[in-house]
Amino acid sequence: MITHNDRLLLGPGPSNPYPEAMEALGRPVLGHLDPDYLALMTEISGQLRTVFGTANELTLPVSGTGSAGMEACLASLLQPGEKAIVGVNGYFGERLCEVAARGGAEVVRVEAPWGRALDPEALLGARRTHPDARLLAVVAAETSTGVRNDVAPLGALRDTDTLLLVDAVTALGGSELRVDDWGIDACYSASQKCLGAPSGLAPVTLSARAVQVMQARVVPVRSFYLDLGLLQEYYLASTPRYHHTASSTLAYALHAGLARLLAEGREAVWARHAAIGARLQDALRKRGFGLVAQDGHRLAQLTATTLPEGLDEAPLRRALLQRYGIEVGGGLGEFAGRAWRIGLMGHAARERSVVALLGAVDELLG
Amino acid sequence: MITHNDRLLLGPGPSNPYPEAMEALGRPVLGHLDPDYLALMTEISGQLRTVFGTANELTLPVSGTGSAGMEACLASLLQPGEKAIVGVNGYFGERLCEVAARGGAEVVRVEAPWGRALDPEALLGARRTHPDARLLAVVAAETSTGVRNDVAPLGALRDTDTLLLVDAVTALGGSELRVDDWGIDACYSASQKCLGAPSGLAPVTLSARAVQVMQARVVPVRSFYLDLGLLQEYYLASTPRYHHTASSTLAYALHAGLARLLAEGREAVWARHAAIGARLQDALRKRGFGLVAQDGHRLAQLTATTLPEGLDEAPLRRALLQRYGIEVGGGLGEFAGRAWRIGLMGHAARERSVVALLGAVDELLG
Repeated sequence: MITHNDRLLLGPGPSNPYPEAMEALGRPVLGHLDPDYLALMTEISGQLRTVFGTANELTLPVSGTGSAGMEACLASLLQPGEKAIVGVNGYFGERLCEVAARGGAEVVRVEAPWGRALDPEALLGARRTHPDARLLAVVAAETSTGVRNDVAPLGALRDTDTLLLVDAVTALGGSELRVDDWGIDACYSASQKCLGAPSGLAPVTLSARAVQVMQARVVPVRSFYLDLGLLQEYYLASTPRYHHTASSTLAYALHAGLARLLAEGREAVWARHAAIGARLQDALRKRGFGLVAQDGHRLAQLTATTLPEGLDEAPLRRALLQRYGIEVGGGLGEFAGRAWRIGLMGHAARERSVVALLGAVDELLG
Repeated sequence: MITHNDRLLLGPGPSNPYPEAMEALGRPVLGHLDPDYLALMTEISGQLRTVFGTANELTLPVSGTGSAGMEACLASLLQPGEKAIVGVNGYFGERLCEVAARGGAEVVRVEAPWGRALDPEALLGARRTHPDARLLAVVAAETSTGVRNDVAPLGALRDTDTLLLVDAVTALGGSELRVDDWGIDACYSASQKCLGAPSGLAPVTLSARAVQVMQARVVPVRSFYLDLGLLQEYYLASTPRYHHTASSTLAYALHAGLARLLAEGREAVWARHAAIGARLQDALRKRGFGLVAQDGHRLAQLTATTLPEGLDEAPLRRALLQRYGIEVGGGLGEFAGRAWRIGLMGHAARERSVVALLGAVDELLG
């Protein structure tokens, strides 16, 4: 027997979709080669270019979650034995290393402690030590710690043969991200966080030189499902070549979420997330909670927070869910068992989320 | 400007979902670690076991389309350099070869002409020639030709060290398929055909000995996203280990489609598909259409049909879509430009689909 509980989703994602995105899920299903579906995909590519801040032709949603977007980029750009420099200061930096290594790449790690930002100079230095690196990858917004890594300085890679790959799963639509201005060659995100749609699609964009790298491969991409070259021939060719049975249901919902975001405006959405996140973080500090991310590199859309001394996080988190229907995430890695991760993303990035959460926390701790 | 056209989906899939599955899409989103979501996944695993006809513990939906299910099985079971015998008598047999080869396997092809069934004796003979083959793969229902390949005789592999892998993308819920009785070790399908849900999930099941093969790997699965061992630790462990942000939206819809199928009964659903497909095929023959699949190996849920001499398929197919909102598929491979593929699957496997299609065809050809 399945119940239908109605959660306020303030974890690390999924977030509550915009009402327009939920409504769009109910539209009649289209075939994956229907002219209407392909026109919808063309519109989505255009919306995504605006949200990413790019003119890249290869801009499309992969049929999978953010992890599929990550793997699509790494698998399509790296050949076995090639070198990838990866910035690691949290769980998703680690995942980049694992996915690259599974694909047969040689991984060079550049680390910072969890909660601290990566040093762009250290990353660029690693590139000088490994000038043959095919790509350098960083997570713009570390979902495990709430840390914002500086991406713009890495644009210096545009003068080298090393591509810049950026994980924007939690960043896109939630904080400043400028693919073309910052010289990003490959970027992926996910539909269910700051874009305000349900999960299942992973927006990806590749620069012209990243496409060239992909097209110059000698070894075929090991994955068929996540081969961005095949997806380009499906979604972006004048005569689409069948690849997989993509979901018009998820596409309609993503389109609606992006339309809502773009109607508000990209910078206005960043400002909304910034204001609401700052409000939450101030209130948490007043209550004796700690903030995991260092000053000056703290995300607004995702806050990792340590609980006041003596409090047991798991039963409190369970009570939030069971009594109030509010989801927050548990800590990951070294913060497991002593931190929460609170997302204020997309439709949930608003006053009501904050007052509901704080009200419940105060009552539980009262 | 996006229009919302309402198609009658009689192509090779997606099919029109059951109304219950469409309704389920609108339910509030759950987090991917919410106890309610995990309980839903447990129910879906149970439903899938019944539909597959298996007691396999590892039975779950992969977060992707049928092609993701194919790749998840091949990538999880084959190590680089291992041998895969693949039956090829259509487009999806070819795809099995391509996905296996990209993953680094050595592929041994056993062919039959498009439109003819594979010879189980030839497949078993190839296994005797290549006793070291890790697996033998066939497509139960070839979506490109409407051919049903015999799977039951391949159960003889249970006495060997070669696993039996079966593509049931179009078969599952549309025609007889018995995973345990037939000795199938790995089987994958898709949500959007005879299961009556939207696309986006790929049900997969692995036998205990397939799981052993996976666990005995020396080389890690090259894909992180499609690693069935990691998915097992996420969905089926007592303490779920986070893997990806799975979609409760698609899970609710699949659950509703499967519930409708199981309420009707597995064998009753097969019989419904058989009756409605036979009706269509008789009517097509009376109108001078040819049937691509050989007698005795013709699927009911998917009919590949050649058009009467002198008719140009593409404009007729376009007229079906534009004037009547009816989608049928074009031919693939050697049947491109001279055949249609007509699916009567799931909710669309009913009288009204047939009379609508025949009425439109008669009017266009009249």
